[in-house]
Amino acid sequence: MKLRDLGEGALVRKIRERFASGVTVGIGDDAAVFDLPAGHSAVFCSDLVAENTHFLRNVHPPDSVGYKSVAANVSDVGAMGGVPMYFLISLAAPGDIDVFWIEGFLDGVSRACSDFEVSLLGGDSSSSDLIFVDVSMIGRVRMGKAVRRRGAEAGDRVYVTGTLGSSALGLDLLKTGNRDDPAVQRHLYPAPRHKAGASMGDRAHAMIDVSDGLSTDLTHILQESGASARIYRDRLPAWPGAEDRHILHGGEEYELIIVAPDLASIIEGIPVTCIGEIIESDGENQAFLIDGTRESVLRPQGWQHF
Amino acid sequence: MKLRDLGEGALVRKIRERFASGVTVGIGDDAAVFDLPAGHSAVFCSDLVAENTHFLRNVHPPDSVGYKSVAANVSDVGAMGGVPMYFLISLAAPGDIDVFWIEGFLDGVSRACSDFEVSLLGGDSSSSDLIFVDVSMIGRVRMGKAVRRRGAEAGDRVYVTGTLGSSALGLDLLKTGNRDDPAVQRHLYPAPRHKAGASMGDRAHAMIDVSDGLSTDLTHILQESGASARIYRDRLPAWPGAEDRHILHGGEEYELIIVAPDLASIIEGIPVTCIGEIIESDGENQAFLIDGTRESVLRPQGWQHF
Repeated sequence: MKLRDLGEGALVRKIRERFASGVTVGIGDDAAVFDLPAGHSAVFCSDLVAENTHFLRNVHPPDSVGYKSVAANVSDVGAMGGVPMYFLISLAAPGDIDVFWIEGFLDGVSRACSDFEVSLLGGDSSSSDLIFVDVSMIGRVRMGKAVRRRGAEAGDRVYVTGTLGSSALGLDLLKTGNRDDPAVQRHLYPAPRHKAGASMGDRAHAMIDVSDGLSTDLTHILQESGASARIYRDRLPAWPGAEDRHILHGGEEYELIIVAPDLASIIEGIPVTCIGEIIESDGENQAFLIDGTRESVLRPQGWQHF
Repeated sequence: MKLRDLGEGALVRKIRERFASGVTVGIGDDAAVFDLPAGHSAVFCSDLVAENTHFLRNVHPPDSVGYKSVAANVSDVGAMGGVPMYFLISLAAPGDIDVFWIEGFLDGVSRACSDFEVSLLGGDSSSSDLIFVDVSMIGRVRMGKAVRRRGAEAGDRVYVTGTLGSSALGLDLLKTGNRDDPAVQRHLYPAPRHKAGASMGDRAHAMIDVSDGLSTDLTHILQESGASARIYRDRLPAWPGAEDRHILHGGEEYELIIVAPDLASIIEGIPVTCIGEIIESDGENQAFLIDGTRESVLRPQGWQHF
């Protein structure tokens, strides 16, 4: 059956039956209504996924598109030190797309709701010649405890959660038809570190998630903080088989870069590795990559749109 | 200059310089952070605008696309009885689009911020073969005062703000090359009734905004409330020159349908017209259109996606 034959009303009813939430007003009205717990600020972000830019319809399974579109926002909320709570989905899709694709997409969204303990509250839908998904999410953070990109100070250490390189390596493998390699699974169903992020409110000076690549996202912290950094190539927690371009520049990792004076080696069950330190700004607020006896500027070479 | 030549970093800097807000964390971090006033719930909605579905690049000026994408959400928040506050924009656009289009789009967003007293806090951007805009908005409503689609009771009156038919008529005129007719201006730069909506918390039993057309949106109220309605054709506040298809089924009006026991004839400076009444459900929860001695079912014939 085509989406056009199902119709918008039936699509909304299907989603409404499947995604329950305990909020004041959930799916099916002009807007959702909910409360934030006392003593908390709201954390608000959105992340868009465009066909042919972020995914290929004949390569990426639909449940991965659904899962990743939620996971990217969970990661962003976590990167502020927040706890993700509620989200909306705006979905544009061709009327002649098979309902099977929509069902798969919703399966991925449903799995993300369960894995990340978040609830779908509504959204919007439209016909379009290409698939376009935009998820907007609300989380909570204790007042005054949001961790920004700015705040890194000379003498702080630079940490990264988990490993680097799996998502970009997985995409390379996926394009060759490999769907089973663990790196492919990480690319399709990423594991954001929001629980580690949420525990950083009292400990981190600056934080960002690796959505555009280590080189690009670390540079965001340095630019915002007015600082530079030294990163040691041999300390980077590389995913097995990942090459430099995956490790240094691969996006959609959804690991956290955390800048702090001192961190434990495991946080919320996730290994945390010290990969370098913040130094006084060199004027350009850039990172230097130390590789044995060589040193070079780690220029942002991750994902750049347009 | 093409958007590709400007680049994502410069685009974000341009937006950040232009749109200031007083919140804890605004544009330029992983997420925005803000507080809601005590005693209020959050109102959360999103509205998607897709090229060739909602607008035509050679017909609609870019500032209208920006203005309407914000206005649609302002209208949704108002239709819950809420006050709009903050929003995010996710924008996908081709890399070879002229920066002039982006500038015009931002002009429209800026004007909407001023007209509706709302602030841009962030968003996302991506390349894409078609333009997509998704705005997600947060508003506030006094706890327990949200006005839903459900709640209409037999004996209630059905009201509509302002006039009906201008937006659909304006689109027809715009397609003939007319840009100056007041109906065209209403289509391009709609005036949501959020201030009237925000005053309805203690007075309305049900409310919705006319985004898909009177027939479709009134039916939403009836379906959600388990009720039927009688609507009088000669009471409908028609825009001069608008035909039945514009008045009964035209979308993007952004007027409010308000169901209440009794309302004043002017609310927040906007004329309010009683167009009919809620009656016991006929089993189908539908509206009957009374036109002189004729009576017919007012079937939803407004905008249906897919």
